[in-house]
Amino acid sequence: MSKELAPDGWRSVCPISSVLDCLGDKWSLLIVRDLLVHGPLTYSEFLTAPEHISSNILASRLRSLTAVGIIERTNPEAAARNNTYQLTKRGRDLQPVIEGLGAWSQNHLKALHPNMVAPY
Amino acid sequence: MSKELAPDGWRSVCPISSVLDCLGDKWSLLIVRDLLVHGPLTYSEFLTAPEHISSNILASRLRSLTAVGIIERTNPEAAARNNTYQLTKRGRDLQPVIEGLGAWSQNHLKALHPNMVAPY
Repeated sequence: MSKELAPDGWRSVCPISSVLDCLGDKWSLLIVRDLLVHGPLTYSEFLTAPEHISSNILASRLRSLTAVGIIERTNPEAAARNNTYQLTKRGRDLQPVIEGLGAWSQNHLKALHPNMVAPY
Repeated sequence: MSKELAPDGWRSVCPISSVLDCLGDKWSLLIVRDLLVHGPLTYSEFLTAPEHISSNILASRLRSLTAVGIIERTNPEAAARNNTYQLTKRGRDLQPVIEGLGAWSQNHLKALHPNMVAPY
């Protein structure tokens, strides 16, 4: 299933539903996390994260995050694999949401997942 | 693919990754949204939300949200379809995250999705 959004591909007029149309999967916010923590990253560097994202999912999510304006290539004229990706202002503004998810996780999932560490 | 978490089914020790292991899909947080907005809901009432969740996805997500302790049945001894679902404390504590996602959405997706409304 394509992650690209059709012009009229929104499920409803709800802001929560709409943000999940863009970011509701297991990988997109991990790419944002990696850019918040490490700064600009190459395609290959994303593949070294501990969750072992597959190359085809990474390529798909980089395309969809770029389409929504959350990330951008630092050298848009070059091929994707010769680029570094960075957060836009729109992407950096996800930091409070990421921190909120992390805080909830540490408060509520630690009992289910004792090996979980802080900070991320 | 099952949404149930295996005991060792976490992708990494990262809290962000771990919360996405539980909630990283297009539907789980919409169920939490509906319970935050409307209070306890029956199985059939979830099906009336404007995003038109399918019955099999709803059943799967109600199971996984219950397994993680985010929602609970108000009458656990009865069959699922004769129950009302409500948020636990763990689920209610997702409210700031949902509000943060909604605020980000209204700040950044309105230009892409002009029909989006507030509040959700």
